[in-house]
Amino acid sequence: MQNRQVLIDNLPEGKLRESDYKIVSSELPDVKHDEVLIKTISFAITAGTRAGLQGSASYAGAPKTGIVMNSTGVGEVVESSIDDYPIGTKVLTQTGWQEYSLQKPQNLTKLREGIDPSLYLGPLGINGLTAYFGLLEVGQPESGETVMVSAAAGSVGHMVGQIAKIKGCKVVGICGNDDKCSKLKDELNFDAAVNYKDSNFRQNLKEATPDGVDIYFDNTGGMILGSALFRLNTGGRIACCGVVSQYDTNTPEPGPKGIPGLLVNKSIRMQGFLVFDFAEKYEEATDNLVRWIDSGQFQVLTDELDGLEEAPRGFVDLLAGGNIGTRIINVIS
Amino acid sequence: MQNRQVLIDNLPEGKLRESDYKIVSSELPDVKHDEVLIKTISFAITAGTRAGLQGSASYAGAPKTGIVMNSTGVGEVVESSIDDYPIGTKVLTQTGWQEYSLQKPQNLTKLREGIDPSLYLGPLGINGLTAYFGLLEVGQPESGETVMVSAAAGSVGHMVGQIAKIKGCKVVGICGNDDKCSKLKDELNFDAAVNYKDSNFRQNLKEATPDGVDIYFDNTGGMILGSALFRLNTGGRIACCGVVSQYDTNTPEPGPKGIPGLLVNKSIRMQGFLVFDFAEKYEEATDNLVRWIDSGQFQVLTDELDGLEEAPRGFVDLLAGGNIGTRIINVIS
Repeated sequence: MQNRQVLIDNLPEGKLRESDYKIVSSELPDVKHDEVLIKTISFAITAGTRAGLQGSASYAGAPKTGIVMNSTGVGEVVESSIDDYPIGTKVLTQTGWQEYSLQKPQNLTKLREGIDPSLYLGPLGINGLTAYFGLLEVGQPESGETVMVSAAAGSVGHMVGQIAKIKGCKVVGICGNDDKCSKLKDELNFDAAVNYKDSNFRQNLKEATPDGVDIYFDNTGGMILGSALFRLNTGGRIACCGVVSQYDTNTPEPGPKGIPGLLVNKSIRMQGFLVFDFAEKYEEATDNLVRWIDSGQFQVLTDELDGLEEAPRGFVDLLAGGNIGTRIINVIS
Repeated sequence: MQNRQVLIDNLPEGKLRESDYKIVSSELPDVKHDEVLIKTISFAITAGTRAGLQGSASYAGAPKTGIVMNSTGVGEVVESSIDDYPIGTKVLTQTGWQEYSLQKPQNLTKLREGIDPSLYLGPLGINGLTAYFGLLEVGQPESGETVMVSAAAGSVGHMVGQIAKIKGCKVVGICGNDDKCSKLKDELNFDAAVNYKDSNFRQNLKEATPDGVDIYFDNTGGMILGSALFRLNTGGRIACCGVVSQYDTNTPEPGPKGIPGLLVNKSIRMQGFLVFDFAEKYEEATDNLVRWIDSGQFQVLTDELDGLEEAPRGFVDLLAGGNIGTRIINVIS
């Protein structure tokens, strides 16, 4: 038995390319004490992992070549030395881009019975929890407020907007093409959607936010963050979730003008967070998300590709804005 | 009777100059219903008012020429149509740079009996309350944490450091010359002080903060904010109080690199505030500040100039870092 893996072959200078990865086959490792062997069912591709290829500024530490590209995935126990995880148990874990992985129990989350495993890569996984805690705990929305979200059709953004609607907010999404704008409004019930590539972006944003912005959920940084600062109301909040505008480059832009001046003048709170900050509340969040999905208030939007070998192309394309919703690579099709 | 006033004669392009002001004499106004005439005793000069000359980005609104330069001051009622404010009452108010001003009661704060009026321009006034609420409410310090403060010898900074010491924190001040550094350490009990004009600033800051920084109280923005970001610990807080590095120019720098990236990676909260956000708690703060002054835990540091005509020079010099402690102009000497 062989384990097919996608390795980081080269650290990108500038834009990431498919050729920065290579696919290899290796022997399946032996399962030792307190370990399980997981067969990957599918994994998610998310922009945040691009930061891990960028050097010391990332929470993931210094990047390396020759290792399996990391990602969250769902899989099934196929060999086990742990009584609590018998063969057949379905789990959420850091599978990485590979067919099999050895895992320790502290890195496993059992999937709830009767729930489609792929939901754990979207609303019930890291992306969904990031949207949930970033909006609710960091943003602290109140009914009637205006929420603006960037990368609004992306893995996290499309869920932020939906949760904000459930909380009674007005939602304005920012994305990079008109098809996405339409989808956000027509299928996900966003109040407005604005294409940041349009030359009238600032004016269009102004018109889409007649009452200003109370919460800006920032997935991008850069120019969109700068524009949001000018629309934010006194007492506004910025939930800093990601910086996708700055990932795919070796020469990040300076921060927006108006920082910190506008933060002072408008008493704005700008707060970075990682989903792990809220680990104690994962169960409560999952309960709420399951309830919203079951009641039809929350639409699950996935964008699936079949085959491990599709991962590099799927990632390069995602960084260019090619996905709508959660991008999933199905390893077992 | 004439009222001598310092008017804004010219909006500065680039650096502020003394010649941007002119001194005029005008007739004393009549006191109408629900008004008092205040004779200015002294007023404070603070960097924040420079923002009011800078255009629409300020909370003070668009700047104008031909008006009296604004400032907080203490004075005495010399004519009154309000029973609650008889002649002789001492008050804190927005005197501006002038000998006399008409005031409405909602803009007056009575001074407590037995307290030196000049304390209301320092620890018991806007500067002291700004230091108090910015550190305690925005920064949320815990005993043993490291607090870094910029413009540390300035009107607000020298009080931030002292309050942080009272709360059991380690305090590192940033200022612009070695005399100030010595004064902060020797007289105000700071644990360390670092001169940002030194070519080894970043290395010196690193050595002065061996456990990193938990709270950065930012009076400057710009390069010092950028350096602080790299020293901040996970879960760190930035209290954004002012942007003195960007006031005295018409071409503000972009924001620091690492915003928002480092905020995300280190779960940092960066929060702008105005002292008025905490108006409900002024009395409580004043009680604590009086207690700390009386017990000798808190040193009052003032830098006084005599004569209304000294105000323009005193302000230009303050923006260049010429003051240590609260700069006060004594109008009645």
